[in-house]
Amino acid sequence: MQKHNFNSGPSILPQTVIEQAAAAIKDFNGIGLSILEIGHRTKWFMDIMEEARHLVKQLMNLDDNYEVLFLHGGASTQFMQVPYNLLDQNKTAAYCNNGIWGSKGIKEAKLFGNVHVASSSADKNHSYIPKELSIPGHAVYLHYTTNNTVEGTQWHHIPATDTPLVSDMSSDIFSRDLDFKKFSLIYAGAQKNMGAAGVNLVVVKKDILGKVNRPIPTILDYRQHIASDSLLNTPPVFAVYVSLLTLRWIISEGGLNVMAQRSTERARLLYSTLENLPLYTLPVATEDRSEMNIVFIIKDASLEKLFLQECETHGMVGVKGHRSVGGLRVSMYNALPLSSVQAFCDLLKDFSEKHG
Amino acid sequence: MQKHNFNSGPSILPQTVIEQAAAAIKDFNGIGLSILEIGHRTKWFMDIMEEARHLVKQLMNLDDNYEVLFLHGGASTQFMQVPYNLLDQNKTAAYCNNGIWGSKGIKEAKLFGNVHVASSSADKNHSYIPKELSIPGHAVYLHYTTNNTVEGTQWHHIPATDTPLVSDMSSDIFSRDLDFKKFSLIYAGAQKNMGAAGVNLVVVKKDILGKVNRPIPTILDYRQHIASDSLLNTPPVFAVYVSLLTLRWIISEGGLNVMAQRSTERARLLYSTLENLPLYTLPVATEDRSEMNIVFIIKDASLEKLFLQECETHGMVGVKGHRSVGGLRVSMYNALPLSSVQAFCDLLKDFSEKHG
Repeated sequence: MQKHNFNSGPSILPQTVIEQAAAAIKDFNGIGLSILEIGHRTKWFMDIMEEARHLVKQLMNLDDNYEVLFLHGGASTQFMQVPYNLLDQNKTAAYCNNGIWGSKGIKEAKLFGNVHVASSSADKNHSYIPKELSIPGHAVYLHYTTNNTVEGTQWHHIPATDTPLVSDMSSDIFSRDLDFKKFSLIYAGAQKNMGAAGVNLVVVKKDILGKVNRPIPTILDYRQHIASDSLLNTPPVFAVYVSLLTLRWIISEGGLNVMAQRSTERARLLYSTLENLPLYTLPVATEDRSEMNIVFIIKDASLEKLFLQECETHGMVGVKGHRSVGGLRVSMYNALPLSSVQAFCDLLKDFSEKHG
Repeated sequence: MQKHNFNSGPSILPQTVIEQAAAAIKDFNGIGLSILEIGHRTKWFMDIMEEARHLVKQLMNLDDNYEVLFLHGGASTQFMQVPYNLLDQNKTAAYCNNGIWGSKGIKEAKLFGNVHVASSSADKNHSYIPKELSIPGHAVYLHYTTNNTVEGTQWHHIPATDTPLVSDMSSDIFSRDLDFKKFSLIYAGAQKNMGAAGVNLVVVKKDILGKVNRPIPTILDYRQHIASDSLLNTPPVFAVYVSLLTLRWIISEGGLNVMAQRSTERARLLYSTLENLPLYTLPVATEDRSEMNIVFIIKDASLEKLFLQECETHGMVGVKGHRSVGGLRVSMYNALPLSSVQAFCDLLKDFSEKHG
């Protein structure tokens, strides 16, 4: 049975990426060795790292004021690494508290300096994005999560401020074009729109670094990684390679604008289907809905279990909501074909007819 | 042409592991999804993590006083994470300075507390392992690197001390049986004897934790990882799976004693060949030679380039010494067949006859 993969992360990858990755495990580029068996200081791997860094800069249209790093870990690592590098003990950073991931970032930042909460949507279970921000003039950066994977909200604008912007883009990176030059630091765990779990993309504007007084452990210091071209220690070789394959795929499909068109098309189809079926409720404010993670509720909660069984019967995986909020959630990343969304909409309708 | 893989890391893996890993990329266990596409909180992955942790405990013969974690990063991450968790600012840890990796560990530990150098082999370019250690009575732990990948030395005994032992076993983990219960913390980057780059094995005796006063960022706190069964954040899913496959392979081959027999056999063959050919010099003290990384020199250094060309011609990769020390190095991890060592010995003899 064909599977429809709505996992929130790790999640669906393009079929061509999967095939190329599997081939490279057996024999990388015909060299007679697996990609798992080659040193990271071989020309083979250094070319991979170089191309991956270059393609990120190309997709983001960034100049040499920016550096691209592929680091171990995921966004949870960056929650700590960002303030370690940017926030001095007696300084203040502004954070938007728009969901579970942003609040985790706040918790870690407080270990390093002062945190000013610039906005919070906690009053309505993080079901919207506050538009008014309170940013102290002395804040060294403003941190926000561009897409809230758990709550299903997404920023559809970039905050207008002179404060340097730091963003967790883990769950919507490369799903749309943005004016990336407006950001001073962008990070993203790869396992949603960009590759496999085990690698972090960090894009950093160099002028934001070197301003804290604390000593930074070598492996956590962005400057050390920059100085060694993201080869400070053994990188997660295979995960970087899968990111490269995905970046190549994005470009070969037509780039970020094509990704954005497809994303909008998927989201329109699913949201309009849900809106037209009274069995279901959409808890998120219309203007702040995520195109990546669609959160919805069956009004009669007793039907939820049955609905999930129907999903399983139809090969649809990853539909259950995050364990912290419950309900239902469908994640629709770059690699998800419209046909999977259509199949899910058909199921929504069928289920509604039977139980509505 | 068949390749002989003498890479120092990432390095050779068992062929069966490579085949199983490639198959799982295409379709994991017949579920219709790639291992790269499944969530880490699915039963599919939680079973992988659980089995991997269990097999490590089984191979090391450890009881429930120990916890096994698979964490992001490599040994370079642990250089910082170990003192973050174990060494208070006003306390002292003892470190053996036996090579490049140990000295990097010392550098990071100094950011967190006092470091007492218990032994140093710097006087002879780290070509031996000092047997006398100076360990202050108040030292909170003694750190040493069981095998020095770069310099080609290996500890063939466990230091006799009441001070808790902390060891970097990155390059000889699971190549021999040890009394692992003598250690309070063991860590190893997986990319030599245990799997692919991008994951760290950390084995920790619980009673050594919780004794520092500093706040520890969540993602760096061993206790947080223990509390969530090594699923605190998205783990490096595929790298953990490759480790599991390798652990299964070790057990199916007969366990650590079989690995040790093969290791000793490979090392005897290569060292005895080198000893009998006057063209080559072995810089390491005989009793401290590593079975994993065999470092040697061609007396006439002008022949080195030609020798490396011969290696390339014969499909032998990874023979060049580490960039920090030069010379030549052959790494022989668990998965290396004796036939590769024999082929290399034949080349050593041929080259010696031509140029001796």
